[in-house]
Amino acid sequence: MRIRVAVDAMGGDYMPDCNVDGALKAISETEDVEVTLVGKEEQILPLLEGKEYPKDRLKILNASETILTGESPVSAIQRKKDSSMVVGLKLLSDGQADAFISAGSTGALLVGGQTIAGRIPGIKRSPLAVLLPTTKGTSVILDAGANVDAKPENLVQFAVMGSLYAKEVLKIEDPSVGLVNIGTEEEKGNELTRTTFPLLKECPDIRFIGNAEARDIPFGAADVYVCEAFTGNVVLKMYEGVAKALLSQIKETLMSSLRGKIGGAIIKPSLSGLKKRFDSSENGGAPMLGLKGLVIKAHGNSTADQIRNAILQCIDFTRSDMKTKITEKLGR
Amino acid sequence: MRIRVAVDAMGGDYMPDCNVDGALKAISETEDVEVTLVGKEEQILPLLEGKEYPKDRLKILNASETILTGESPVSAIQRKKDSSMVVGLKLLSDGQADAFISAGSTGALLVGGQTIAGRIPGIKRSPLAVLLPTTKGTSVILDAGANVDAKPENLVQFAVMGSLYAKEVLKIEDPSVGLVNIGTEEEKGNELTRTTFPLLKECPDIRFIGNAEARDIPFGAADVYVCEAFTGNVVLKMYEGVAKALLSQIKETLMSSLRGKIGGAIIKPSLSGLKKRFDSSENGGAPMLGLKGLVIKAHGNSTADQIRNAILQCIDFTRSDMKTKITEKLGR
Repeated sequence: MRIRVAVDAMGGDYMPDCNVDGALKAISETEDVEVTLVGKEEQILPLLEGKEYPKDRLKILNASETILTGESPVSAIQRKKDSSMVVGLKLLSDGQADAFISAGSTGALLVGGQTIAGRIPGIKRSPLAVLLPTTKGTSVILDAGANVDAKPENLVQFAVMGSLYAKEVLKIEDPSVGLVNIGTEEEKGNELTRTTFPLLKECPDIRFIGNAEARDIPFGAADVYVCEAFTGNVVLKMYEGVAKALLSQIKETLMSSLRGKIGGAIIKPSLSGLKKRFDSSENGGAPMLGLKGLVIKAHGNSTADQIRNAILQCIDFTRSDMKTKITEKLGR
Repeated sequence: MRIRVAVDAMGGDYMPDCNVDGALKAISETEDVEVTLVGKEEQILPLLEGKEYPKDRLKILNASETILTGESPVSAIQRKKDSSMVVGLKLLSDGQADAFISAGSTGALLVGGQTIAGRIPGIKRSPLAVLLPTTKGTSVILDAGANVDAKPENLVQFAVMGSLYAKEVLKIEDPSVGLVNIGTEEEKGNELTRTTFPLLKECPDIRFIGNAEARDIPFGAADVYVCEAFTGNVVLKMYEGVAKALLSQIKETLMSSLRGKIGGAIIKPSLSGLKKRFDSSENGGAPMLGLKGLVIKAHGNSTADQIRNAILQCIDFTRSDMKTKITEKLGR
């Protein structure tokens, strides 16, 4: 089965160029995927001119509007009916695409994903599952999307969906689940974590290992970290901020002495890969879990390679049939 | 005026040795301070044997019990009346000490600080203010203590007290205040931050600069960061965790090649200071703000130097008369 991926050509910092290039890269690498670029035809067509590619696996669907990152998500999705995001999500809900990828407004995509693509019946909230680099490999944290002030029962659903994602797509065997908290003991935390803990403990569909303290997250204390979105966003952004600040300080310290400059020049090649590995934006994209179709949020500053990664990621995700598996566990 | 500091001799990973040594260091450096070591006399006395120090500025107050870190804070404070922590806090509430420092159970100290030392009338909750290293210098985050599920009016008090602390003790002129949030726009965040934002905006006693995203915290986006304690703890522990994980990965990467080993040996001296700077535990201690007396939480793994720092810190704090200044702004 060929996977049909709709790509928001107008989302992200380097649109439409990187989005178009990413699509070209993906379809040239495997015959298993076909892409529909959704967006302003007059901007997309010139980028394809003179390029060789399998024409039957790259389509363009014109959409005259673009949702900007500053706009209010709810009203943007409601008003801009002919935006690349709304048109792309409709392809998904109409069954004409298996997946939709956007590097555009996260807020609008989260709203549009739930309202246009729609949740699987029984799923109360759809979390954004983001991959985190750790010293052991990769973990996944959810929700890192919009479900702030989530309820305990939402977090339990996140845990089940996150476990399925880790197992079926990331191929982590028997993934462990940790509740992001500020202490390891059961009674630690705020009202939400204290109420959620016993529910996770009793949940038969996950391997719950208890609370995970933030300081252990970068060391891969669990495969799946569960939290509401405020905490998830703080964790992700601290990851980004501390790593960047530390690396910039290292650079500055080294450049301030001749000895440092010499040493720095020697170690530079060893460290360049590391910097990339600790930058969570390097991953292809983050899926919204629990929707009827696959919606992937690509990082706002996605390059062509990252868009390509996000497209190829849709193949495994769709073939692992997450929708059926989530429905079996949580659907009604 | 000589500042009278009570030190919990039985708190912390290296007690009582480091606590006693830290006290000796502090009193040998300045005549402005006198210390009462509170704890088990039979363990403290042998450590002082044969040492030369100004005897009139170092006392021992026997306390037969010790509160352990695993104990339930509330019941420990209630039951262990003769613990070093309870006895030390009573010195403070009786006016026989100006400050109390403990590297012991954070939870117990936070409970004991509020119930034994007591809050300034008008202060609803007492936050723990922790210093954060940034690329620009030092910022302070509060609450990083126990006030999870705090209310908007609590956060406003935290902001006012944090500003006073930054100005009067850290000597930051006209300190800026940021609300820790997951986006910069006013309407971003969870119910707590959305309700708190307008209150901070209207507060005449602070220079509020809006929301501070977690990723900008390590770059010193604000001098004072305000949040409830769950978020504060996640920020602090991510700081610690990411920095540690990244540095360990750098080391591992360098050690895996000859080139890396050579470069690593050359840069080692430049980087050792940096590692220390990014470790927030290097700071002396964190004050609880809004109490009638000064209560300082020293890091659990405090060395003698850190205990010394915490003791010396009490001089500036007490002389700046924070209590009067907080009472002027928030007391009733």
